[in-house]
Amino acid sequence: MKNFDINEDPHRRYNPLINEWVLVSPHRSKRPWQGQNEIVTSDALPEYDPTCYLCPGNVRANGEVNPAYENAFVFENDFAALKQEEIAFEEDKNQTFFKAQPERGISRVVCFSPKHNLTLPEMPVAAIENIIHTWQKEYTDLGNVDYINHVQIFENKGSVMGCSNPHPHGQIWAQSSLPTEVEKTQNNLKAYFDKHGSTLLQDYLKEELKLNERIVIENDHFVVLVPFWAIWPYETMIISKRHFGKITDFTEEEITDFALTLKQLTTKYDNLFETSFPYSSGIHQSPTDGELHPEWQFHMHFYPPLLRSATVKKFMVGYEMLGESQRDITPEKSAEILKNLLGFHYKHSL
Amino acid sequence: MKNFDINEDPHRRYNPLINEWVLVSPHRSKRPWQGQNEIVTSDALPEYDPTCYLCPGNVRANGEVNPAYENAFVFENDFAALKQEEIAFEEDKNQTFFKAQPERGISRVVCFSPKHNLTLPEMPVAAIENIIHTWQKEYTDLGNVDYINHVQIFENKGSVMGCSNPHPHGQIWAQSSLPTEVEKTQNNLKAYFDKHGSTLLQDYLKEELKLNERIVIENDHFVVLVPFWAIWPYETMIISKRHFGKITDFTEEEITDFALTLKQLTTKYDNLFETSFPYSSGIHQSPTDGELHPEWQFHMHFYPPLLRSATVKKFMVGYEMLGESQRDITPEKSAEILKNLLGFHYKHSL
Ligand SMILES: O=P(O)(O)O[C@H]1O[C@H](CO)[C@@H](O)[C@H](O)[C@H]1O
Ligand SMILES: O=P(O)(O)O[C@H]1O[C@H](CO)[C@@H](O)[C@H](O)[C@H]1O
Repeated sequence: MKNFDINEDPHRRYNPLINEWVLVSPHRSKRPWQGQNEIVTSDALPEYDPTCYLCPGNVRANGEVNPAYENAFVFENDFAALKQEEIAFEEDKNQTFFKAQPERGISRVVCFSPKHNLTLPEMPVAAIENIIHTWQKEYTDLGNVDYINHVQIFENKGSVMGCSNPHPHGQIWAQSSLPTEVEKTQNNLKAYFDKHGSTLLQDYLKEELKLNERIVIENDHFVVLVPFWAIWPYETMIISKRHFGKITDFTEEEITDFALTLKQLTTKYDNLFETSFPYSSGIHQSPTDGELHPEWQFHMHFYPPLLRSATVKKFMVGYEMLGESQRDITPEKSAEILKNLLGFHYKHSL
Repeated sequence: MKNFDINEDPHRRYNPLINEWVLVSPHRSKRPWQGQNEIVTSDALPEYDPTCYLCPGNVRANGEVNPAYENAFVFENDFAALKQEEIAFEEDKNQTFFKAQPERGISRVVCFSPKHNLTLPEMPVAAIENIIHTWQKEYTDLGNVDYINHVQIFENKGSVMGCSNPHPHGQIWAQSSLPTEVEKTQNNLKAYFDKHGSTLLQDYLKEELKLNERIVIENDHFVVLVPFWAIWPYETMIISKRHFGKITDFTEEEITDFALTLKQLTTKYDNLFETSFPYSSGIHQSPTDGELHPEWQFHMHFYPPLLRSATVKKFMVGYEMLGESQRDITPEKSAEILKNLLGFHYKHSL
C-alpha cells in the first residue's frame, strides 16, 4: 500500500480556529478550465473620477458632499446593513425553529486615499500608516459605544468580490453580537487558552517559523503565511509576532512594519498574475465587550479568489456549499510561489 | 422605544441545522447596484454540440467516447478531486496545528439528458424520474463500497456557479468522511433526536405548514419552502413529508412527486428573472456508514446566487467571509414572490 504523501494524495486538513476541515486535491491542479472567465478591466483609471461617489468633493447617493479629504476618510455607510436604533424585544426562550433577535450596529466606509486609482500596493508606506491610524481610531470609537461588542474591519477589492467601486476603500461593520465566524474563532481560541495557558496563534506561529514551509513574508513584527488549513488558492494570514489582541496595541514600530507588510503582500498579489489582484480581507481581533480576552491574537485574513490567472477563479459552489471547502494547489506550493515573487510592483518595473 | 418588526428591522436568525446565524437587513433591499453584472448568454443552445464533452457519441478529455445514451448517463469524473486508492497512514494524535488525513473517494458525473440544451424545468417528468432512479442506484452502489460513508449528490448550474459546461449534468462525490457541513447537520439532528425523540426537520416542517408564510410548493409528498434561516436571496429547501432518511426510501408515488416538485421549482426559478436560473443544489440524506440514522430526514437544498435580476447576484464576500452570512430581502418576501410565480415555463407561454 502506498504511503501517505501530503504533496500528492487527496486529503483533509483541520482548521483549529473554526473547527472545520478542508479537502485538498493536489493532483487536481492540472484540470483544464472551460468555464466562466472573469473580466479584467486593465484600462488605466483616472486619479479623479467625477462620477465616483467616493472621490473628494463629489456628491454621494444620499446627497451629502465628500470633503476635499487628503488622507483616509471615513463616513457612515449610506446603505448600511445595520442600524443604530434600539429595538424593544423579548426573547421567546422556547423557540427552536424561529429564533430571531434584533441586531444593532454601525457601518462605516473608509476611503483609503483621495486618489481614485491608488490601491494599497502602490501607496506610500506613510499613507498606509495613516489607514492603520484610522482603523485604530475607529476600533476605539466604535468599541466604546456601549452596545457594540464587535468591530469588523474589512475590504472587498475588485468587482469579482462584489466591490461596486474601484476607488480604494474598505468597510467597518460594528455590532452587538459576535458574528458567526468570530464566535467560532473565539470559542476555539478560548478552549485552547484554558487548556494550555498560551494562545493558539502564538504557538502555531512558532511552529510555522520552525518549519518554514508556508512563510511568505517575515519582518521584525509580523509574519505572512499561507495557513496549513487555507481554503482559497492564495489565502494568507498576517500574524503579529508579539502577543497582543487588538490593533490599538500596536507600537509605533509595529504600525510601520504592518504598513510595510500590507504593501509587500498586496504587491506580491498584484505581481502573481500581473493584475490588480481581487480579494476580501479583514482583521480578526479582540471583541470590544469590555473583557480582557488574553486568548486573542491580532491577525488579518486575505481571501483571494483567483486560481490560475487573472481571469480564472476558484468557485466555492456545489460540493463546497453542501459538503466542505475544497482546494487543488497545496498551501505549501502557494506559499512558495508567493514567497518567490518580486517585492517590486510589476507596473513600476522596467 | 420601537417594537421589533421582523419585516423591517435588522436582525439575526438562527439556523438549527448547522448552529449558525444569518444577518437579515430587510431595509437594505432598495440599495442601488453599481457593481459587477453577470453575463447572460441568451443564445439558444443546439440540441447537440459537437464540441461538448458530455454529448452522446463525443470524446472526453481522457479519450473515452460517450455512448449514444438516451437517458441519464453516469461516468467517473475525469478530473476527480478524490481518488479510490487506499493510502497507508498513521495518525499523530498529538498534532494540534498540522492535522491532516488521507481521504478516499469516488466522483462521478451524471448527465441528466442526451440533449445539450434541456435543463430540468423543460424536461418531461418521466425524464426527471429517470434521473431520480439514477441517483437511487448511485447512492446504493457507492454507499455499498466498504470505505464510503457519505454520498454527496449535487448540481452546479450556470457559469456563475462555476459550471464549465451548459450540458445539463450534476455530480456525485462519495467519500470516507462526513464533509464538514454534513457533520454539523448530523450533530444537530442527532442532538435534537436524542432530546425530543422526533426529527428536527419533521417537527420544523409541521410548524412551517401551520404558519404557511414561507411555503412555495406543497403536494402530497413534498414541501418546498424558503427556510426561516435561508442565506441566499431565493434559497429553498425541499423536505419530504413522510419521515425517511434517504432517496432509496422513496415509494413509486414519491418518485413521481419529487420529479414534479423539481420541475415546478426550477420552472419558478427560470420564470423569476426570465433566465436559465443558476444555482447549486444538493441532497442531504443519511450517511452510508451502516448505522440506522433515525435522526435524518431526506431534504434537498437550492442555493441560487441571483438577487435582483438575471445579471445582479448577491456577493458573499468580506463581511460574510469574516463575519457571517448576510441577506437583504426577507425569506418571507422571497417565498411569497416564488409562490406567486407561474408554474408554466416562460419560454413556452404565449
Ligand atoms: O467539477 P467542476 O464542475 O469542473 O467544478 C466545479 O464544481 C466543483 C464542485 O463543487 C468545484 O470544486 C469547482 O471549483 C467548480 O468549478
Ligand atoms: O457594501 P457593498 O460594498 O456595496 O457590498 C458588498 O459588500 C458587502 C459586505 O461584505 C456584501 O454584503 C455585499 O453583498 C457586497 O456586494
